[in-house]
Amino acid sequence: MADTSSKPFSDPYPSLLTHQREVSLLSSTGALLGWDQETMLPPGGHAFRTDQLAQLARLTHEMATDPRVGDWLAACEADAGLSDVGLDSGVNLRAWRHAYDRATKLPAELVVAFSEATSQAKTHWAEARRENDYDRFAPWLDRIVSLCREQAACYGWDRAGGGEAWDALAEGYEPGLTAAAVERVFTPLRGRLVALIDRLMGVSQAPDDAFNKLELPVDQQQSFVRSVSQAVGFDFNRGRLDVSAHPFCSGTHYADVRLTTRFHRDNFNDALGSTLHETGHGLYEQGLPPEHVGTPRGQAAGLSIHESQSRLWENQVGRSRAFWTWCHPRLVQHFGGPAAGYSADQMYAAANRVSPSLIRVEADEATYNLHIMVRFELERALMSGELEAADLPAAWNEKYRQTLGVEVVGGDAQGCLQDIHWSMGAIGYFPTYTMGSLYSAQFFEAARAALGGADALDQQFAAGRFGPLLGWLGEQIHTKGQTHYAADLCEAVTGNPLSADPLLRHLEAKLLPLYGL
Amino acid sequence: MADTSSKPFSDPYPSLLTHQREVSLLSSTGALLGWDQETMLPPGGHAFRTDQLAQLARLTHEMATDPRVGDWLAACEADAGLSDVGLDSGVNLRAWRHAYDRATKLPAELVVAFSEATSQAKTHWAEARRENDYDRFAPWLDRIVSLCREQAACYGWDRAGGGEAWDALAEGYEPGLTAAAVERVFTPLRGRLVALIDRLMGVSQAPDDAFNKLELPVDQQQSFVRSVSQAVGFDFNRGRLDVSAHPFCSGTHYADVRLTTRFHRDNFNDALGSTLHETGHGLYEQGLPPEHVGTPRGQAAGLSIHESQSRLWENQVGRSRAFWTWCHPRLVQHFGGPAAGYSADQMYAAANRVSPSLIRVEADEATYNLHIMVRFELERALMSGELEAADLPAAWNEKYRQTLGVEVVGGDAQGCLQDIHWSMGAIGYFPTYTMGSLYSAQFFEAARAALGGADALDQQFAAGRFGPLLGWLGEQIHTKGQTHYAADLCEAVTGNPLSADPLLRHLEAKLLPLYGL
Repeated sequence: MADTSSKPFSDPYPSLLTHQREVSLLSSTGALLGWDQETMLPPGGHAFRTDQLAQLARLTHEMATDPRVGDWLAACEADAGLSDVGLDSGVNLRAWRHAYDRATKLPAELVVAFSEATSQAKTHWAEARRENDYDRFAPWLDRIVSLCREQAACYGWDRAGGGEAWDALAEGYEPGLTAAAVERVFTPLRGRLVALIDRLMGVSQAPDDAFNKLELPVDQQQSFVRSVSQAVGFDFNRGRLDVSAHPFCSGTHYADVRLTTRFHRDNFNDALGSTLHETGHGLYEQGLPPEHVGTPRGQAAGLSIHESQSRLWENQVGRSRAFWTWCHPRLVQHFGGPAAGYSADQMYAAANRVSPSLIRVEADEATYNLHIMVRFELERALMSGELEAADLPAAWNEKYRQTLGVEVVGGDAQGCLQDIHWSMGAIGYFPTYTMGSLYSAQFFEAARAALGGADALDQQFAAGRFGPLLGWLGEQIHTKGQTHYAADLCEAVTGNPLSADPLLRHLEAKLLPLYGL
Repeated sequence: MADTSSKPFSDPYPSLLTHQREVSLLSSTGALLGWDQETMLPPGGHAFRTDQLAQLARLTHEMATDPRVGDWLAACEADAGLSDVGLDSGVNLRAWRHAYDRATKLPAELVVAFSEATSQAKTHWAEARRENDYDRFAPWLDRIVSLCREQAACYGWDRAGGGEAWDALAEGYEPGLTAAAVERVFTPLRGRLVALIDRLMGVSQAPDDAFNKLELPVDQQQSFVRSVSQAVGFDFNRGRLDVSAHPFCSGTHYADVRLTTRFHRDNFNDALGSTLHETGHGLYEQGLPPEHVGTPRGQAAGLSIHESQSRLWENQVGRSRAFWTWCHPRLVQHFGGPAAGYSADQMYAAANRVSPSLIRVEADEATYNLHIMVRFELERALMSGELEAADLPAAWNEKYRQTLGVEVVGGDAQGCLQDIHWSMGAIGYFPTYTMGSLYSAQFFEAARAALGGADALDQQFAAGRFGPLLGWLGEQIHTKGQTHYAADLCEAVTGNPLSADPLLRHLEAKLLPLYGL
């Protein structure tokens, strides 16, 4: 970069900082093009977008692997006055080292090939899902898996310690996450979740979920979910809410945070839940510290923590009785007619109806984590070579039968084609969703204790006051950036290591009474 | 670039081609960010967008001024088997030489400063216009003019031949365009236009324009203008239509062409005219030859020719009696109620009502060119230093009084704040609008002759058949890319050099009967 090459080497940290902010800036341009691809791009423009994204990926990779970065890093790391992780500079250096070591392990051709393959695969996935035709996507998934295996081989993993290829990819989403560690958390959680779900399913009279099927005009749904997003604290002066096939949050900068959601005429709770979920991601992005923009200190901690924020707003807030006390009269006033026939209790019950089903993003809070476990097992098998892309539908359907007790009917659009992630090359990503659910429950217990207890928080929600909770999250988590890795942040915020108990306490305390147990 | 540096120098044309396509690709990413800034960007995101655009401008400039480009160009130009302008390679080499010589004259700091200033100025312009407060914009215009003067000094101009600073900027929009040449065209045109307008204004009973003030729901206007754009041939599989403060067309690629328009509840013809205008630009972009994408041979000829295409669809088609024969029943069916009270003749008359007014983009076809002459004279004075940014409102208002005979009332939002161009640094651009009007009339006469005469074409339009005209334009102009400079293209297509006669013939033949003359 012209503006860094002239800096004297004797001042490595400012040079590195300037350079890394340039890397972050160029990378944010790629993120914007990705957002545009999912929301705005005309169908005919995808091939060209692939070229644009591949070029940016190559330029960003060239910049990130500039040999001067290695020199600057080494010089800074040797200086304890910079590299102590108690300092902002130390937080940055740790993350830049992690990123540099990973980036320099990938040859540029693999970076470009991966960008091209995923940009095209996303388009083919969307088409395959729309047409309910897995065969259109299979060669693309095969290509992605093959490139992911190549990436893992470049990154390497802890073979001696029993590691596996999957770990090398997960490390990119959450430093320290391994398949073995995930398995240690998932196995007992699965047992306790399945036991709870079995108890609930044994009840003869499930809560009424008629409200979930109520038909409501899509344009009115759009304006309503937008108002909810704004009410819980999303700043539309620094963000947008649009529509895409798969809801997501694209945070290119704390002042340009873009959420998407989706709408069905007869599933308002899907749109509301997706919006609250993405709003949770967005509030995190908008709450990052402006003075550290473009550096790890000003960027979100790993994906598990990101997911803890979306889950918290979707579940701990959006599926609470107090939230529905506030939401109900607004909803009735907004939609009038048909909505007026439902009480707050009915809406609350509908939002919490548990029912093993086929679609992850429409799943209830209890069965959701079982959907994640299926994906984790399958992607682990894809990476190890035990499973090939061509055999995915059969394996998927079998896992759903075993784990959730449901048959995939209606084709692969209802099964292995439902998620965008693998088409984006995001293998190693899914478990962070369940890790996020666990963190969200543990953070929420801490928030409740700090903000005056359950009753106080309920009263705030019922009155539409979400500011105190957001303020606490901002102070404890958002403004911290990457100061801590996920596990350490959990201890710092809650005083305890991550445990499955808060999530199970939360689910049992809410669901057992609703099911008359 | 990694992928060109390995090419042997003995094969300069393929190396240059690959490299220049990369430049074009990166530049298209900047264009997309610019589009997003005008249509999608949240208000708080502008400062960050400025940084993104400045980075892309710097990277693009670095790539475009790579010294290898100069070496490759020199080697190719020495080879008559490549550089003959009758060959695609010769067309490309001529344009690349022009661009390289200009780009290498600008220091990188000036490129970055210009990108930053214009990105910010656009935001401040939009705010100043909204608030009707010129003082907010004045320092930004001052900065832009100062940077434009610096640019002109870097580019240089033909001092010995009586050139001036303005020429150096105009050359970037239209090779060969000079202030003196523009003046030679504008002076006689102005006399004949003013005489025509005076005759029309002397008529006691002007055509009824009540339809122009009819209130119609904006969402219905949106769907209708979209259907018209599609009907005349715009391919929405390869394009979009959105809303922005100032309508524009952003053509980043023949398969991703983005139009914008704007809506007022009580001025449907403004939305329709703007849409047809931008559609004309868009049809040109969509009609460029795919096999030459990313090279001058596959890019639009200068801005005057681009404008000839927008004017042709807006005026020669969209303001014709035959167009309204087709449009009228569709419009009545679409809007029902209020629109049903107007006949095709009334709509046609309203679309052609001549009335000197304040806003360029709402001007009728006859007075429009006077608006351009005002801007040309003012920007020429800004560049020469005869006029300073602070004095623009007074100078603007005086010119409108002299040239159009109207007083600027309602503040500068109705005057010198109305256009986005200068805030984008686009000085030297406005005259291409009137050059485009002249080319459009001359091209349309040629099209009429080629397609069976005026009656045949009218019958096609009345039946909604715009394909033959679009096909002819595609064959004669769109697919030619930059094969010819504007003046040569005019001769090649029409057999004659550019003349003001076709435009005046067109206006007189239409307007005199409408005004009972």
